[in-house]
Amino acid sequence: MTDNLLASQAKAARDASIQLANLPTEQKNQVLDTVANHLRRSTKKILQANQLDQEAGQKMVETGKLSSSAYKRLLLNEDKIEQMALNMESVAQLPDPVGQIQQATRLDHGLDLYQITCPIGVLLIIFESRPEVVVQISALAIKSGNAVILKGGSEAQHSNQVLAEVIWEALEQFDFMPNGAINLLNTREEVSQILQMSECIDLIIPRGSNALVQHIQAHSKAPVLAHADGICHVYLDESADPQKCEEIVLDAKLQYPAVCNAMETLLVHQNTPEELLAKILLKLQDAQVELRVCPVTKERLKHVASLQVMDAVEEDWSTEYTDLILSIKSVSSLQEAVTHINSYGSKHTDSIVTENEEHAEWFMNQVDTASAFWNASTRFADGFRYGFGAEVGISTNKTHARGPVGLEGLVIYKFKLYGQGQGVDRYEGKKFLHEAIEGP
Amino acid sequence: MTDNLLASQAKAARDASIQLANLPTEQKNQVLDTVANHLRRSTKKILQANQLDQEAGQKMVETGKLSSSAYKRLLLNEDKIEQMALNMESVAQLPDPVGQIQQATRLDHGLDLYQITCPIGVLLIIFESRPEVVVQISALAIKSGNAVILKGGSEAQHSNQVLAEVIWEALEQFDFMPNGAINLLNTREEVSQILQMSECIDLIIPRGSNALVQHIQAHSKAPVLAHADGICHVYLDESADPQKCEEIVLDAKLQYPAVCNAMETLLVHQNTPEELLAKILLKLQDAQVELRVCPVTKERLKHVASLQVMDAVEEDWSTEYTDLILSIKSVSSLQEAVTHINSYGSKHTDSIVTENEEHAEWFMNQVDTASAFWNASTRFADGFRYGFGAEVGISTNKTHARGPVGLEGLVIYKFKLYGQGQGVDRYEGKKFLHEAIEGP
Repeated sequence: MTDNLLASQAKAARDASIQLANLPTEQKNQVLDTVANHLRRSTKKILQANQLDQEAGQKMVETGKLSSSAYKRLLLNEDKIEQMALNMESVAQLPDPVGQIQQATRLDHGLDLYQITCPIGVLLIIFESRPEVVVQISALAIKSGNAVILKGGSEAQHSNQVLAEVIWEALEQFDFMPNGAINLLNTREEVSQILQMSECIDLIIPRGSNALVQHIQAHSKAPVLAHADGICHVYLDESADPQKCEEIVLDAKLQYPAVCNAMETLLVHQNTPEELLAKILLKLQDAQVELRVCPVTKERLKHVASLQVMDAVEEDWSTEYTDLILSIKSVSSLQEAVTHINSYGSKHTDSIVTENEEHAEWFMNQVDTASAFWNASTRFADGFRYGFGAEVGISTNKTHARGPVGLEGLVIYKFKLYGQGQGVDRYEGKKFLHEAIEGP
Repeated sequence: MTDNLLASQAKAARDASIQLANLPTEQKNQVLDTVANHLRRSTKKILQANQLDQEAGQKMVETGKLSSSAYKRLLLNEDKIEQMALNMESVAQLPDPVGQIQQATRLDHGLDLYQITCPIGVLLIIFESRPEVVVQISALAIKSGNAVILKGGSEAQHSNQVLAEVIWEALEQFDFMPNGAINLLNTREEVSQILQMSECIDLIIPRGSNALVQHIQAHSKAPVLAHADGICHVYLDESADPQKCEEIVLDAKLQYPAVCNAMETLLVHQNTPEELLAKILLKLQDAQVELRVCPVTKERLKHVASLQVMDAVEEDWSTEYTDLILSIKSVSSLQEAVTHINSYGSKHTDSIVTENEEHAEWFMNQVDTASAFWNASTRFADGFRYGFGAEVGISTNKTHARGPVGLEGLVIYKFKLYGQGQGVDRYEGKKFLHEAIEGP
């Protein structure tokens, strides 16, 4: 697309965002339900387009240009399309994040201030592989009243295109839905161009690899909601319960090692019984996990003949493996564990296993992390498990939205002041009321 | 300061932020009250330091290096020091923004999730001229549990330094207050250096000129909370009440023209009575306001002999004068007014004057602005007038915090999950409870 065309598309998205901001909940839900039905009715067309991506993908796998896991993620089938439709319908069921009164204050008689949630405006969402994301993000954008510009992975281009077309067809049935509500970019160059148009984009959400997120963070002027790394820790405290240690460590590493909330480093208090540590590490080893240990841990485990460990190097403590690799470090105190996490972690999710409530609270307060857990697997850090009904992404930002982000992450607020002709000069030397306004 | 020294100062601020995050409300308030008393007791010392800035400032005024208004802003006296002490004490009285439970969900029996407000971490605040800001920002940082790095204007360097020293002396009395809680940079070079250390800074708040804000936005990787421009509009609708028009327009332009929430452009519906428009513009002219009008407005007013107007040019619509200048544009509809504001405005504060409730609501919904007013002067957009008790700044951001920002803008949240040893694998195929947890 030329710069001009792209700029006019961005402008259309901006214009659309104003209209979308003011759609009543019922109309937005009606659109979502209609898109769901359109998806079901378009199953054949979607699968045909996906077939093109599959064929091209297969060749890319053969020539080593695509990983087999990435190839698997781009496959669609009837079940997945039904899931997309159900996802649309379930987003329709969620409460509307827009129009919530966050605060209402009577500044004076006849001068009422309301702080009300509203959409952010125009979102740019960049993702890889899974074409379902086109549908998921469109659902969240419609529900939250934001316009959205989507860019998917080129390996799923036919699938992404057909899914966007199905959504556009559904949207066209509604006069109240503006053109420009949902946009699809096709090339990386367009992403580069649009990153320069910072006045057109209010929030960027890159969902994908560490490299993608870091690239976007480095090249964008608009705010970015994302997590680059997911270096999550589990710390086994001196007084940890053995059974809890085992379930949590195995779950955090093995349940789904490729995701951002999997554990990458296990911190172990030096007084943790060696049998317990050996038992857990042997189970990890049986599950093909490569173990990279600090010198103290190595020394402690040297008599466990069946255990094969590697030496961890400094770099290990700041590496997100997203793979069957675990670094293990012995610490002499709770304080040392927390210092390690605050130095090397990525502020994503960190868990303490302990029976000592004081230690647990101290850990959860002192660890600078989005999700601080006591006696639970790091894998719980997830918008659906948290009960948000939808997940926009997981953020390691320290502003706007942190941790798993639901629909609330896609809104901000505006202030509305209802006066009767007042200027501020009337209040020079006069006090404001500043009373909470009760009721709806 | 060398890069190394600066980096270690930033590191100290980071370490301090962890400790500050966990201070109980009573301890923070005790510190604030103690600083207030120290300020009062140090009046003489503060005035002596300020005298040095005054002398240097006078020379700068004479040589044209400092404006006389900037010179006035750096002057301190006993009253102003008492005001600073009172400010400390009033911040102590505000509710603690940290530790508020925003959401509590029982994911399952024995698996409770809390979303709790916490400080952002390390703030970098850059400001100009007024040395009081050292004290005001320190109060807000202490109350919100954030570490802060301050950089004031060089013309107030002695005053800033002595105020920081008085605060440090007070803080030293408390073992629980970490070193590195409040830091003062002295040179612009240090700001440039620290902007490169984005991992050390969680949020930057530049308070000052448009040029300062734009410079920081262009050179920082950390999020910036600010408003660059304050291009605020008042729109006189067809059905506006004449008296309300007059009070609001005069207040919005004249009450304090140098500030960001003053009106810069007046939009007038073409059916607004000419006598009313002429009357208001003559009053503005009497108050020395330069009037820059569109061709339609010029034509409408051509018979008002005593009115002297200039032709507005395209650039006027996107210019923040912060001075006795006003651009005036005639529009043919409410829609045109809104389109103008959304095209040229700065999303700061915009007001409609009308007796038509439907028009008012439509305007407030369609205008993409932080503060949308009906029948009230734009000058009301202010944290103190809004009842926040303190103002961190005014933000035209679309994420995190928008409009006048109180203490709440200096906190984010973390999730705490209290488990009993669970891994997520237990919940494969099993539903979560997702029940709200009632009570404290």
